[in-house]
Amino acid sequence: MALIVQKYGGTSVGSPERIKNVAERVARFRAQGDQVIVVVSAMSGETNRLIALAKEIAQNPDPRELDVVLSTGEQVTIGLLCMALKEAGVDAKSYTGGQVRILTDSSHTKARILDIDEAPIRRDLEAGNVVVVAGFQGVDERGNITTLGRGGSDTTGVALAAALKADECQIYTDVDGVYTTDPRVVPEARKLDTITFEEMLELASLGSKVLQIRSVEFAGKYKVKLRVLSSFDDRGQGTLITVEEDQNMEQPVITGIAFNRDEAKLVVLGVPDIPGVAYQIIGPVADANLDIDMIIQNVGNDGLTDFSFTVARADCDKALKVLETVREKIGARALKSDRTMAKVSVVGVGMRSHPGVASKMFRTLAEEGINIQMISTSEIKISVAIEEKYLELAVRVLHKAFGLEEGAASV
Amino acid sequence: MALIVQKYGGTSVGSPERIKNVAERVARFRAQGDQVIVVVSAMSGETNRLIALAKEIAQNPDPRELDVVLSTGEQVTIGLLCMALKEAGVDAKSYTGGQVRILTDSSHTKARILDIDEAPIRRDLEAGNVVVVAGFQGVDERGNITTLGRGGSDTTGVALAAALKADECQIYTDVDGVYTTDPRVVPEARKLDTITFEEMLELASLGSKVLQIRSVEFAGKYKVKLRVLSSFDDRGQGTLITVEEDQNMEQPVITGIAFNRDEAKLVVLGVPDIPGVAYQIIGPVADANLDIDMIIQNVGNDGLTDFSFTVARADCDKALKVLETVREKIGARALKSDRTMAKVSVVGVGMRSHPGVASKMFRTLAEEGINIQMISTSEIKISVAIEEKYLELAVRVLHKAFGLEEGAASV
Repeated sequence: MALIVQKYGGTSVGSPERIKNVAERVARFRAQGDQVIVVVSAMSGETNRLIALAKEIAQNPDPRELDVVLSTGEQVTIGLLCMALKEAGVDAKSYTGGQVRILTDSSHTKARILDIDEAPIRRDLEAGNVVVVAGFQGVDERGNITTLGRGGSDTTGVALAAALKADECQIYTDVDGVYTTDPRVVPEARKLDTITFEEMLELASLGSKVLQIRSVEFAGKYKVKLRVLSSFDDRGQGTLITVEEDQNMEQPVITGIAFNRDEAKLVVLGVPDIPGVAYQIIGPVADANLDIDMIIQNVGNDGLTDFSFTVARADCDKALKVLETVREKIGARALKSDRTMAKVSVVGVGMRSHPGVASKMFRTLAEEGINIQMISTSEIKISVAIEEKYLELAVRVLHKAFGLEEGAASV
Repeated sequence: MALIVQKYGGTSVGSPERIKNVAERVARFRAQGDQVIVVVSAMSGETNRLIALAKEIAQNPDPRELDVVLSTGEQVTIGLLCMALKEAGVDAKSYTGGQVRILTDSSHTKARILDIDEAPIRRDLEAGNVVVVAGFQGVDERGNITTLGRGGSDTTGVALAAALKADECQIYTDVDGVYTTDPRVVPEARKLDTITFEEMLELASLGSKVLQIRSVEFAGKYKVKLRVLSSFDDRGQGTLITVEEDQNMEQPVITGIAFNRDEAKLVVLGVPDIPGVAYQIIGPVADANLDIDMIIQNVGNDGLTDFSFTVARADCDKALKVLETVREKIGARALKSDRTMAKVSVVGVGMRSHPGVASKMFRTLAEEGINIQMISTSEIKISVAIEEKYLELAVRVLHKAFGLEEGAASV
């Protein structure tokens, strides 16, 4: 008998029919003797419908009240799923975030979970109930309804698994696991049986949007066994996200290849090469709430240097506006921007102990005539910025070069 | 400065545009210096949409979970209205039934309010907030979400007005007050400036469905000043529902004429005229959850009597089925039913001190050749069952006979 947390996203509960399917799967786990906690999102489309209603009232709806409105989406799903479970002969009880209670801070629309009162859940489980909890929501200490931000249901699932020391947290989605890269770009992409939390974080933040990043961090921190599965295919085992590296001899150096099409490069030319200048440039951009990705400062020359970084393409104009003020203030020569950038990253914990990954990556791209414009590295990742038109080609040749389709890497 | 509770029904908050209109009215009251508590229903159509979703999952959805789903309708409205109030420059804060908290018993889908914690509301009002409360919902002592049944938002409004000793509870709806009868039948029908609770109860239960009956009982019990107003017309004063009878000299004997088209008559013929037989007939019908209206037992004859009563027309078949068993058991001769009945009632507290209302009613109907099939009376009401085809005629001639269009009655 295991204690399992299952989280179902909006597509998996997108219609009464699909909710019944979820109830049937849960019933099978119960029949095996498992205790099950189910976390659900709003039915697909519902959150957008509610946001649209709010936007008709106010361009910038009051955050506290927006949370009151948005949290109803998951509340509908927990009620419907419990009805379906009871129809399937399974005892079930629903909880909103406030009822559990999932205590968060008061940052409406992006609250963080502080504590979960697991006692009532434990009691219900022991009484033979399936416990169905609304994802994405909680309450602050004064009882105000909060939400965790988009994708927050994953975090709810992991937090419940951590609080109740569940044997596994299963995230059901519309893909059957984590792949070496996007199968739409590389048809030979292979589903991974396991991946480490660190690798998952790098892959997720780089564009393989299977799981919400925060939930992966959370799972890593509290050592929750996390598994990504398809809710439309009962056969596979999905991908298990583990704390430990795979101890096999023939461990692959590279686990996967992530990419992001949506980058823009900004260059500040002729920057005085003095201490603090990086902060003077990046500070105002960050203050304008623009996410900065790769940052490169060239070696100075005649006391001047060039400073480059990338932002999401949609933020390019806003960033340029901020930079123009900065340029005048610090006396830089000029600004340049390029909106046709893409980023490709190879990710793998194996590269810690295997030198030569970077040189292999650069050689592979050079052989195809792909110019690398920026490079950034971490312990388990190497990212390069290239022209967008070469993106698919780059991903395909790297996927092949690192032997990902065969299940074993060679440097 | 007054403390006012305003309740808005589903039509009044049926779109973002209408919600903004409500916010503007509330803002005007605030500008006058009034403290305002607003109670809202779900946007029109929303409750039906949620019920339809539940019915797709289960024919008889689990009541606890149905309440979880249904209560989201009002929760969306409170959030949206607060956003609109803030847009209009008015400080506002929303509360679900669980947050207030409105404590109810545990009868899901038809719970009754036991207690309201008015302290946080009072605090918010004093801090200058408009307090917006979700109607129709509460929580039981274990924190389960409950609903009060259809129209329960009226009850929430009255209960809040009672708990906070509000100066007035204003019920905004799509009619501008209570009329002497339905203006679609009698164009000369006159809006009443005042009506007593007792009269309102008789009129409401007889088919003038302006207010939920329970809320009127509640208001009468706790002496809450209740006013029915139109949310689409700001000019009128609506109808004030009062505890006291109007003390004017020229007080009308009859306040209004109610009617109900939807009746069926059932007759059990040749019933042994012995003690307890009425219970033997009515008991099983009530046990089958059929609402019984008028009940008449004729004077016995040769130890036999006839027993008649009316039910809603939709319940007629079900009632006949129950009665067939009863008939065999008690040895009655036969059953008869008539599905073309209607009921007309004259209502007025003035009839307590004015004899002759009944005879005037019967004479008026007789002059038009309308046959009275059943009669029942209370202290402030006389009802007759007639053939449905005469219904409009009966209402018109009675309205005229009792001088309702002129604002003064004469017997």
